[in-house]
Amino acid sequence: MEKIVFVAFGFCCDPLKEESLMKTLTQELWVDIPQRRQIVSIHREVEELVTQSGVVDGLVLVNAMHITASVFINDNEQGLHRDYDKWLEELAPFDPSPDQYHHNRTGEDNADAHHKRQIMGREVVVAITENRLHLGPWEHIFYYEFDGRRRKRILVKIIGE
Amino acid sequence: MEKIVFVAFGFCCDPLKEESLMKTLTQELWVDIPQRRQIVSIHREVEELVTQSGVVDGLVLVNAMHITASVFINDNEQGLHRDYDKWLEELAPFDPSPDQYHHNRTGEDNADAHHKRQIMGREVVVAITENRLHLGPWEHIFYYEFDGRRRKRILVKIIGE
Amino acid sequence: MEKIVFVAFGFCCDPLKEESLMKTLTQELWVDIPQRRQIVSIHREVEELVTQSGVVDGLVLVNAMHITASVFINDNEQGLHRDYDKWLEELAPFDPSPDQYHHNRTGEDNADAHHKRQIMGREVVVAITENRLHLGPWEHIFYYEFDGRRRKRILVKIIGE
Repeated sequence: MEKIVFVAFGFCCDPLKEESLMKTLTQELWVDIPQRRQIVSIHREVEELVTQSGVVDGLVLVNAMHITASVFINDNEQGLHRDYDKWLEELAPFDPSPDQYHHNRTGEDNADAHHKRQIMGREVVVAITENRLHLGPWEHIFYYEFDGRRRKRILVKIIGE
Repeated sequence: MEKIVFVAFGFCCDPLKEESLMKTLTQELWVDIPQRRQIVSIHREVEELVTQSGVVDGLVLVNAMHITASVFINDNEQGLHRDYDKWLEELAPFDPSPDQYHHNRTGEDNADAHHKRQIMGREVVVAITENRLHLGPWEHIFYYEFDGRRRKRILVKIIGE
Repeated sequence: MEKIVFVAFGFCCDPLKEESLMKTLTQELWVDIPQRRQIVSIHREVEELVTQSGVVDGLVLVNAMHITASVFINDNEQGLHRDYDKWLEELAPFDPSPDQYHHNRTGEDNADAHHKRQIMGREVVVAITENRLHLGPWEHIFYYEFDGRRRKRILVKIIGE
């Protein structure tokens, strides 16, 4: 499995940039999540913040500010999102009783949500090139809440030049 | 699932900063891990390094330097940590024999640890705003070792302005 | 589990650097993936790009540009890679039929690949110190494709000073 058969450099852009000063943009996004579990596209919002930042080359960090939620990149296809929901329920089923999860002995009922979020991840870090998100053709940024039914917060932090 | 019901910008901070020079801080943390599997809070240590760095706006990367361990962000609640331990043992059980895991044919007994670490992740990237970790109210940074019983190393790298 | 027994700072390097200008490097790597599922080392390529960037202190983001693939860091050991393949097939089995996965009702057969990639992750962020990848002794960077049989693309983005 180790042998690499072919590697080439793509011609995406001017690889090496002149040195310059650094700039940043920081923004919290609030999203209304009426359901317990819900996937919400935040792609356009992140795109607009990148434009607004004026950062030509850099990184954008997008993370859930809640520990029962994920930010992830995958296909913008509803069938797949239904599949994720079913799959995560199999891997870490919702069970509000204190029997399956010690965490629910604290009076919480969301232990499953803390597990599901670890599978899907807390954050994504995306490259910015020529003042745009540098993504493959199908990459799409989503927020995935596992214990919603209220407003939730996402952090966007951009640094670059 | 796709429809976004409401998005607003939070008023966390001055979103756009003046351009300035860049600075960094690099620190390896050593932690004693007497048990095979152990969760250790490294939150305060990372907080202190952020203060010490003088970085007002930027990013901090915190990663395990071992491939049998994770750095993750979740609840500082011992019941949940017990739940994680049980859950990961179900998903990737410890088995030192060479039967279940090819990796253990090398003389190692820690193949399960290499699997568990992939669920919980290698690293976190956290925003720094106004010289502080920019986190949600319950976010707490932990190191999770799956093959301990000796000193282990964590890397903290801060970049920003 | 909470009690931290010992923490010390390692003497890896000069922790605090002088302020300076920022630079970046951006490169897409193309890799030929003849098999459906395949692990490919991209470690040396990333190392060479770090050298070429001239970045002394900073971060490198390495991410799959495909949503059926992962970039991950773990052991360069073929037995472990076979174990991962078997394990991921248990957690999210290949099934081209439209019965198990809604996603495969779109005419696709790769729903399993979109699941496997979430376990292994999309990206890694690695520190750069003294113009080198700052890694633990066994950390090795891989691309893991779950729906290959053609050329695939990986993005390397370096920012720092």
